[in-house]
Amino acid sequence: MTQLSSRAPFANAIRALSMDAVQQASSGHPGAPMGMADIAEVLWNDFLNHNPNDPTWPNRDRFVLSNGHGSMLIYSLLHLSGYDLPIDELKHFRQLHSKTPGHPEYGYTPGVETTTGPLGAGVSNAVGMAIAEKALATQFNKNNFDIVDHYTYCFMGDGCLMEGISHEACSLAGTLGLGKLIAFWDDNGISIDGHVEGWFTDDTAKRFDAYGWHVITDIDGHDPEQIANAIAQAKRVSDKPTLLCCKTVIGFGSPNKSGSHDCHGSPLGDDEITAARKFLNLPNEAFSICDDIYAHWDAKQSGNEKQKQWQQLFSDYTNSYPELAKEFDRRVINRTLPENFETIANDYIAKCNKDAANIASRKASQNTIEAFAPHLPELLGGSADLAGSNLTLWSGSKGISSDDASGNYLFYGVREFGMSGIMNGISLHSGFINYGATFLMFMEYARNAVRMSALMGIQNIFVYTHDSIGQGEDGPTHQPIEQLANLRMTPNLVTWRPCDAVETAVSWKNAIQNQQQPTALVFSRQGLNHQSRSPQQINDIEKGGYILSDSTKAPELILIATGSEVDLAMQAAKELTEQGVAVRVVSMPSTTLFDLQSDDYKQSVLPNSVVKRIAIETSHQDYWLKYVGLQGKVIGMSTFGESAPGNVLLAHFGFTPENVINTAKALLKVNA
Amino acid sequence: MTQLSSRAPFANAIRALSMDAVQQASSGHPGAPMGMADIAEVLWNDFLNHNPNDPTWPNRDRFVLSNGHGSMLIYSLLHLSGYDLPIDELKHFRQLHSKTPGHPEYGYTPGVETTTGPLGAGVSNAVGMAIAEKALATQFNKNNFDIVDHYTYCFMGDGCLMEGISHEACSLAGTLGLGKLIAFWDDNGISIDGHVEGWFTDDTAKRFDAYGWHVITDIDGHDPEQIANAIAQAKRVSDKPTLLCCKTVIGFGSPNKSGSHDCHGSPLGDDEITAARKFLNLPNEAFSICDDIYAHWDAKQSGNEKQKQWQQLFSDYTNSYPELAKEFDRRVINRTLPENFETIANDYIAKCNKDAANIASRKASQNTIEAFAPHLPELLGGSADLAGSNLTLWSGSKGISSDDASGNYLFYGVREFGMSGIMNGISLHSGFINYGATFLMFMEYARNAVRMSALMGIQNIFVYTHDSIGQGEDGPTHQPIEQLANLRMTPNLVTWRPCDAVETAVSWKNAIQNQQQPTALVFSRQGLNHQSRSPQQINDIEKGGYILSDSTKAPELILIATGSEVDLAMQAAKELTEQGVAVRVVSMPSTTLFDLQSDDYKQSVLPNSVVKRIAIETSHQDYWLKYVGLQGKVIGMSTFGESAPGNVLLAHFGFTPENVINTAKALLKVNA
Repeated sequence: MTQLSSRAPFANAIRALSMDAVQQASSGHPGAPMGMADIAEVLWNDFLNHNPNDPTWPNRDRFVLSNGHGSMLIYSLLHLSGYDLPIDELKHFRQLHSKTPGHPEYGYTPGVETTTGPLGAGVSNAVGMAIAEKALATQFNKNNFDIVDHYTYCFMGDGCLMEGISHEACSLAGTLGLGKLIAFWDDNGISIDGHVEGWFTDDTAKRFDAYGWHVITDIDGHDPEQIANAIAQAKRVSDKPTLLCCKTVIGFGSPNKSGSHDCHGSPLGDDEITAARKFLNLPNEAFSICDDIYAHWDAKQSGNEKQKQWQQLFSDYTNSYPELAKEFDRRVINRTLPENFETIANDYIAKCNKDAANIASRKASQNTIEAFAPHLPELLGGSADLAGSNLTLWSGSKGISSDDASGNYLFYGVREFGMSGIMNGISLHSGFINYGATFLMFMEYARNAVRMSALMGIQNIFVYTHDSIGQGEDGPTHQPIEQLANLRMTPNLVTWRPCDAVETAVSWKNAIQNQQQPTALVFSRQGLNHQSRSPQQINDIEKGGYILSDSTKAPELILIATGSEVDLAMQAAKELTEQGVAVRVVSMPSTTLFDLQSDDYKQSVLPNSVVKRIAIETSHQDYWLKYVGLQGKVIGMSTFGESAPGNVLLAHFGFTPENVINTAKALLKVNA
Repeated sequence: MTQLSSRAPFANAIRALSMDAVQQASSGHPGAPMGMADIAEVLWNDFLNHNPNDPTWPNRDRFVLSNGHGSMLIYSLLHLSGYDLPIDELKHFRQLHSKTPGHPEYGYTPGVETTTGPLGAGVSNAVGMAIAEKALATQFNKNNFDIVDHYTYCFMGDGCLMEGISHEACSLAGTLGLGKLIAFWDDNGISIDGHVEGWFTDDTAKRFDAYGWHVITDIDGHDPEQIANAIAQAKRVSDKPTLLCCKTVIGFGSPNKSGSHDCHGSPLGDDEITAARKFLNLPNEAFSICDDIYAHWDAKQSGNEKQKQWQQLFSDYTNSYPELAKEFDRRVINRTLPENFETIANDYIAKCNKDAANIASRKASQNTIEAFAPHLPELLGGSADLAGSNLTLWSGSKGISSDDASGNYLFYGVREFGMSGIMNGISLHSGFINYGATFLMFMEYARNAVRMSALMGIQNIFVYTHDSIGQGEDGPTHQPIEQLANLRMTPNLVTWRPCDAVETAVSWKNAIQNQQQPTALVFSRQGLNHQSRSPQQINDIEKGGYILSDSTKAPELILIATGSEVDLAMQAAKELTEQGVAVRVVSMPSTTLFDLQSDDYKQSVLPNSVVKRIAIETSHQDYWLKYVGLQGKVIGMSTFGESAPGNVLLAHFGFTPENVINTAKALLKVNA
């Protein structure tokens, strides 16, 4: 084992807390925190600009622990440097309602910048943060006023580097020349299954060189001087992200378990902890840190001073550039929308209603972006190489590039998962409202990043077009079936599938105003007919489900539909009405929002008394049993689609007025 | 534009068919087929060992079009070389029930080895095929009897290379030294959004060099001699996969649209087709190929000869190694299970019933593998770096490595999506039954490959452990909520969540016997109590849902549960029974299979007359409305989990006998 450095006592405090907390919890991962302790100590004590008193200081450096299972590393760092994370919280590591959950969770712990654990996700978030920094700096900085000027540091393990998302995110980071992104590879040669040479033989330095990164190799991750020199060297390169390849020993300090996967994901055990304490010259008592160690780590005073300097700079900036400062305050610090946004949105919704255009909802979406974006400089768009299909570009779109970050659009390339993880990072950074698009089917490639967005409760607008078999000829590989249910069942995600331009505009308004949740906007490829609505009906769209047309007497049948199937329901209802059936049509663009309404409202739309209900949607039928019950019917999908023109497929799978009418008649006959 | 080569007329046949079919369909992608036509022509006419008369010849070279949107390339190749794909099928490109769907689909078109379209997936399949070849060769080949000896060729576009799955699969391909994998990068500098330099600046040659591949750069993809030399050079390197970097012009042959994304995904239009025909010296008539061109392409006779030679070799092999030949016949050609498998499985299920062990279902899964695997040499296991958690290793497990492919286990590394795509390739190759594991949560990373497995209708056993909040301290990033519903709604996928060791053994038996569908086996981390069953009940497990305990009189209440919640239902039912409630408990380990039963059987388990039903499962509640209806209740999840010990979380979220009992009583009171 490497000799302990003179700075070792400071790093050993991390080791002590990490092994003690994992032991106390009988659960957790001591290996990574103990292995990366020296790197973290140098970074946090010598380089990181932050203020433990104010974890929201806009110009703080961002720190992301992409290998999130090593959560005790970040909890130790936050505790030692003076964040509001007392030792008792560390003693309750991994316990219910503690501030120290098993993996770092945004919103639970002051100073945790993003939720990590799913491997590779963190580095994609870090790339997003660095993009946000670069773009925001370009938009706001002025000569002598670098009010946005911070680094994003990211720790990664072998697992992060094996995951595909690291390829997507790091490749794009190279293309965009993110010079203030500095990533540390914890090259310990160990993953859960053991020594990685059986399954991970990449020349990682060469790989990142291929991405256009600045790569520093052969850093002894237990030598503070080497680490400090490497970080300084990284900071001198401003046009490329830097990868620091740090050789470390997993579980460093554990005499008998270090260097082996035995210390990766299990407590060391009392005997080994005793041996480690002896080796590391630590007090014998658990959770015991000497005062002088605390004093060395304490970053509260220096943090206050740094933030104060920045506040002075920002105050001078405010005098010189009052309008820009106001915008910075609005977008970055307070994260509020322009005051007139509600009016602009409502006016546009009214205009859509008046225009009564019959267009695809993806086109309606583009029109809405065109209407809203000039008033929302924080809107940052993008698509995973499908701009012309997703219709995500508007007349003011300008791409962000390595040389020019003044734009408002990211050409993400064919990188759905990377895009979505980057969006999470941009959103977490503050200053922007993201929208990013792909086909609904390829939401799947990015699924876990969408879920993480929902778990963190952060704003993101995921635009998903080509939403059904209606997309046609591309065939079943491109036709979503089970994907809508998957989005709708994701907790804390708001999903919309609008039926025309009016509902589309409302969905966009709702997504932009919803700053605490991500939104999935699901749009058609094919044209959709405009539906007529009263002002009250237009207001009700935001309730997620509402009566679009009703019978004069009490309904005996309710048709529930979304998106492209609403017009189908309306056609069938017209015919059924003519045949004397009392039928109601409910448009349900967002089941998420409908479910949140009062019982009274829900009953007013879907009264218990009407058990004859038909849900119509070109997605998996099982989801809709929730609204139609065992006595209702669903006209939906239970198989994969086919390759054929969209209208042929819709007829083939029963999405015709005739089938709706026949299904309705059969249902009405049962126990009639 | 590059000069046309002397072999150009053969390649131009591909260009002709591709532009004509896309034009006729008014939909499709002419750019890639026209750009890669020369490469394809050289590969297919000079190198590819195949027999158009028998697309199932076991020793054929595999060809994978990972850039599947260029489907007219493969349809042209299959048509021209003599597969059962007449010109009329090409005229019905992208039409309902044609053999030429929008993207190549396995099972639709003879000679299409895998379904591609979702980018990057194809190359992961190709890696799987090459692994299967290497492992099978090691198991079956003898001196002078290389009965398994073929190449796997894969075409990739920029999109495939941007996708993360290409990183995962190609990195592992390098580690495993897949010398018979030869991939072609269609380096045309264009993706849908335009010229790729704005979003894709990787040095791809260096990247693949970093993976340990043999890389050949600077090949003019329109120069047949260069292409042929490069393929020959690739074949001479036997210990590394080869990447051929081919510079091409997208839409080559289209005078005004080549080299631009205008020809990527839209028909060229009549005028441009006329211009292209002139440039390429093609007949003016659509779908017209001269006889001499057909004659050059025709591979039927050479294919027959090649296969005949191999048949002779195999016949001699059969004489020398009759037992091995019989196994080859069984595993590779006929894909049948050992005759005694049913007996072995049933004996083991009976043993589990007798042993009555209270163990985690992941442990029961490992025990089952241990019991079955010695009798199934085709069983090829693996895990995405979670062997010790997924419990996928058995006493006979041996890793496959670059130097030694005689094993039966793949250490996939932290590559869930890569693993699942590779499993698809291995399964498509034939010779193996795959199982591959990760945590249920990280199924999401691999979602689309699981879906592709279901879409193709191929056998794969996806093992997913740590199936709920019961996994405990790792917290919400690791706790599935909506994932089970997502699996269950995936068409053609069989999902199981067994409640004890007996159901676990049955689920494995079913998965192994189901050769037409993939199966997801979902297992608990925590211990589960054994449930007592009659022989009839044991038989009924394979029906997916069955009565585990019943009331003496007609039930007034039905509790439906799966997995870890079955014992909870049983505890609650016992108490309710003592309190005089007529309660039935239904164990529903596979809703997929239950839904396939006769109405009579389903009614016998869940009679319409009993509307008071409670479903209990630690996953998203919305799914279960399907079985309990609007008058029932679900004890499930609608939020994310938390980080705490599993038993604490189960109680916190209401998975206690008390809550079930109280919910039941409240339900029984309604309209009682």
